[in-house]
Amino acid sequence: MFFSKSIFHWIHKLSPVQLILLFYFIAVLLSSMVLALPVAHQDGVDIPLIDVLFTAVSAISVTGLSSISIADTFSTTGIVFLAVILQLGGVGVMAIGTSIWLLIGKKIGLRERRLIQTDQNQTSFEGMVRLIKQILLVILTIEFIGFLILGTHFLQYYSTAKEAYFHGFFAAISATTNGGFDITGQSLIPYKNDYFVQFINMLLIIFGAIGYPVLLEVKHFLFAKQEERKHFRFTLFTKVTTLTFFVLIVVGTIFIMLMDFSKFFADKSWHEILFYSLFQSVTTRSGGLATMDVGELSVSNQFFMSLLMFIGASPSSAGGGIRTTTFALVIIFIITFARGGQSIRIFGREVYNEDLLKAVTVAFMAGIILISAVLLMLVIEPISLIALLFEATSAFGTVGLSTGITGDLSSLSKIILMILMFIGRVGIITFLLIFNTNKKSGKYHYPKEKIIIG
Amino acid sequence: MFFSKSIFHWIHKLSPVQLILLFYFIAVLLSSMVLALPVAHQDGVDIPLIDVLFTAVSAISVTGLSSISIADTFSTTGIVFLAVILQLGGVGVMAIGTSIWLLIGKKIGLRERRLIQTDQNQTSFEGMVRLIKQILLVILTIEFIGFLILGTHFLQYYSTAKEAYFHGFFAAISATTNGGFDITGQSLIPYKNDYFVQFINMLLIIFGAIGYPVLLEVKHFLFAKQEERKHFRFTLFTKVTTLTFFVLIVVGTIFIMLMDFSKFFADKSWHEILFYSLFQSVTTRSGGLATMDVGELSVSNQFFMSLLMFIGASPSSAGGGIRTTTFALVIIFIITFARGGQSIRIFGREVYNEDLLKAVTVAFMAGIILISAVLLMLVIEPISLIALLFEATSAFGTVGLSTGITGDLSSLSKIILMILMFIGRVGIITFLLIFNTNKKSGKYHYPKEKIIIG
Ligand SMILES: [K+]
Ligand SMILES: [K+]
Repeated sequence: MFFSKSIFHWIHKLSPVQLILLFYFIAVLLSSMVLALPVAHQDGVDIPLIDVLFTAVSAISVTGLSSISIADTFSTTGIVFLAVILQLGGVGVMAIGTSIWLLIGKKIGLRERRLIQTDQNQTSFEGMVRLIKQILLVILTIEFIGFLILGTHFLQYYSTAKEAYFHGFFAAISATTNGGFDITGQSLIPYKNDYFVQFINMLLIIFGAIGYPVLLEVKHFLFAKQEERKHFRFTLFTKVTTLTFFVLIVVGTIFIMLMDFSKFFADKSWHEILFYSLFQSVTTRSGGLATMDVGELSVSNQFFMSLLMFIGASPSSAGGGIRTTTFALVIIFIITFARGGQSIRIFGREVYNEDLLKAVTVAFMAGIILISAVLLMLVIEPISLIALLFEATSAFGTVGLSTGITGDLSSLSKIILMILMFIGRVGIITFLLIFNTNKKSGKYHYPKEKIIIG
Repeated sequence: MFFSKSIFHWIHKLSPVQLILLFYFIAVLLSSMVLALPVAHQDGVDIPLIDVLFTAVSAISVTGLSSISIADTFSTTGIVFLAVILQLGGVGVMAIGTSIWLLIGKKIGLRERRLIQTDQNQTSFEGMVRLIKQILLVILTIEFIGFLILGTHFLQYYSTAKEAYFHGFFAAISATTNGGFDITGQSLIPYKNDYFVQFINMLLIIFGAIGYPVLLEVKHFLFAKQEERKHFRFTLFTKVTTLTFFVLIVVGTIFIMLMDFSKFFADKSWHEILFYSLFQSVTTRSGGLATMDVGELSVSNQFFMSLLMFIGASPSSAGGGIRTTTFALVIIFIITFARGGQSIRIFGREVYNEDLLKAVTVAFMAGIILISAVLLMLVIEPISLIALLFEATSAFGTVGLSTGITGDLSSLSKIILMILMFIGRVGIITFLLIFNTNKKSGKYHYPKEKIIIG
């Protein structure tokens, strides 16, 4: 009793960000333990500790990078464990934790609300409890529909209904949570000519990556009464993030198409080119599933896709990266300055300068972290810059695409990728707050002096 | 008469930035014409137009990248032409232009002062005319001393005094202006064991890259009377830029050393390792001369040196890149934000927020321009990412180091590099101003709304 009391006391003293960290570490620890259980493995298969840990971090951060083949390593039980971990990671450790509290009837206090607020990055304290319930409801509904559609469609691919619906179950969870893992052994390549499967997967990936706030607003709009709907106004956040999200997909598709037009796409038909480009563009938002071996694409395309993965998904989604809003605000920041500081209006609104600065800082920090990681891996590995850059941005964007080098990496590089996956999932802002000591601001100011720049 | 009057009228209507552009283009045009003259070439050697243009842009921007071998192509006359062009580019087209006006006794008006101010990036209007005179005096003095020392030292290398002093003449100009061209056919590799030559060259490169304002302030300090010297205060600019400059050199040396310790440096003695690392670190500030084939360094080192070249030299120097001050202010910006907006004091001063934002914008724009250039070259060339990244940052930093691919590039890639050299030399701020239309700021503001970031 004394022991549990002192732990409670210790936890109570932690800052919200430190608490989130603690929860993430516990989640990774538990996941590792579960995935290391012999019952989770196929007969006679043994996994090195570093690979168990790597899989756990990859699953909790819903990245999908894997140094081992899921299909060749895990038993059916192991795959179900993995699906549960993806679910845990996708909806967010905090959201799940809170909903469990809800289930056992405990009222959520201000302290816990603040906890969720930091993780889900919400600006308003209101309706936090309701939010978590809604997230779960929305995600589970999407997954269940995806499971039914894919499972039924898979009946033509697999000999038993059980097998078809099991593949449908895992595929729906992996796509919706943006987990990006596969149990086919080669991602969605077996369905490379099945545009229906690809279409459903793209929809599920988009649902998982576009951000819960957007989903909830759209749900509110759809379920609103006619009178209410007339006055309904989507928030600036939803407008900006959704526009950026779809612009990135369209521009991504066009560029991917162009850059391999006379190379990988040279002998393909127009609909193959369209679907290869479209799917690979969508998946860089954070999905990670692929309908082709991205290592076969030209180096220019791999470089371009690295940029897309660096941007990543929308905030408060299952995805990572610097986030679509950050990217949009950086663009707005640059345009603002290029126009001599004249502020920009988007959708009839102005953005706070504070938000612009926040976005710029996030992008910079992310760039510095990514470049450092790539540099370090270049020193360790005898692997080309493009392959390592692709792998590192894939980890940071919690995307999970790979040119195929993950299994060949040394333990140190795997640790670097794990850190990138963690930062990508938690987000740079939260990551920065970890190191933020609460020093009081200096009371007096020093004289200012101008400095010549560039 | 009417013709020259209407040209004068047209020129008078240009903005300062457009005027600078015009002067740069004229300088490149004249340089190309001079370098294309048959008298400038060795017997029987013919240069394609694109390579003449490339050499001219490279010389005017004092970069030193070259798609042809200077030693095998140009005659003694051609080399003297090249030295003059480097001088023109190094001290700055505008500075030279103004000093010619001074020589013919024309008084410099406000309009012309402003012109030079933008090019040399000075914050105060005062003493602009004096400044140009001083720049010329300082640079020519340094070059003359360098010429005497190197020429005399070269007597042991060359059979005639004429040859030795000719090499000394070109080497002194190429190092001091940070031109980076060589007439040995292999940069400073012939002197790879001559640490005296390397030391002198490093000194000259630093003089050219550390920025004229710093040189002038140091000169003022040295020539000040004892009483005056007691109260002498170096500007914040000089302190920040000089500190950053030398920190970059030291950190660069250590990292270059470490990253090839068990690779290129494995069979070298300690003094070889030290001088190779030190010289290559100094030269990335913008010098461009090299004591080794940088293509032999490990990929990690080439990546690291690309980062150093991206930062480049100090403002108002003969070098390019985003500049040392920009780099320093970006670091200050990030630290400021990481500490929750609490302002940072450096040398007992605070920096203006406006300057921080300017620095951040410059770094971002530079990153976007560089990434776009590399992406485009990846599409065109069957060359590795690391080699193209190295080449592009070398051009943007007006450094001139190369892993040896310059001559193999297609004309389109050469044009991309020329644009990078131009932007790198002119500086991002000036480059942005080119597109800055003078629209009036909107009178009313739209309501602001917060956006969730990352
Ligand atoms: K993923
Ligand atoms: K140079």
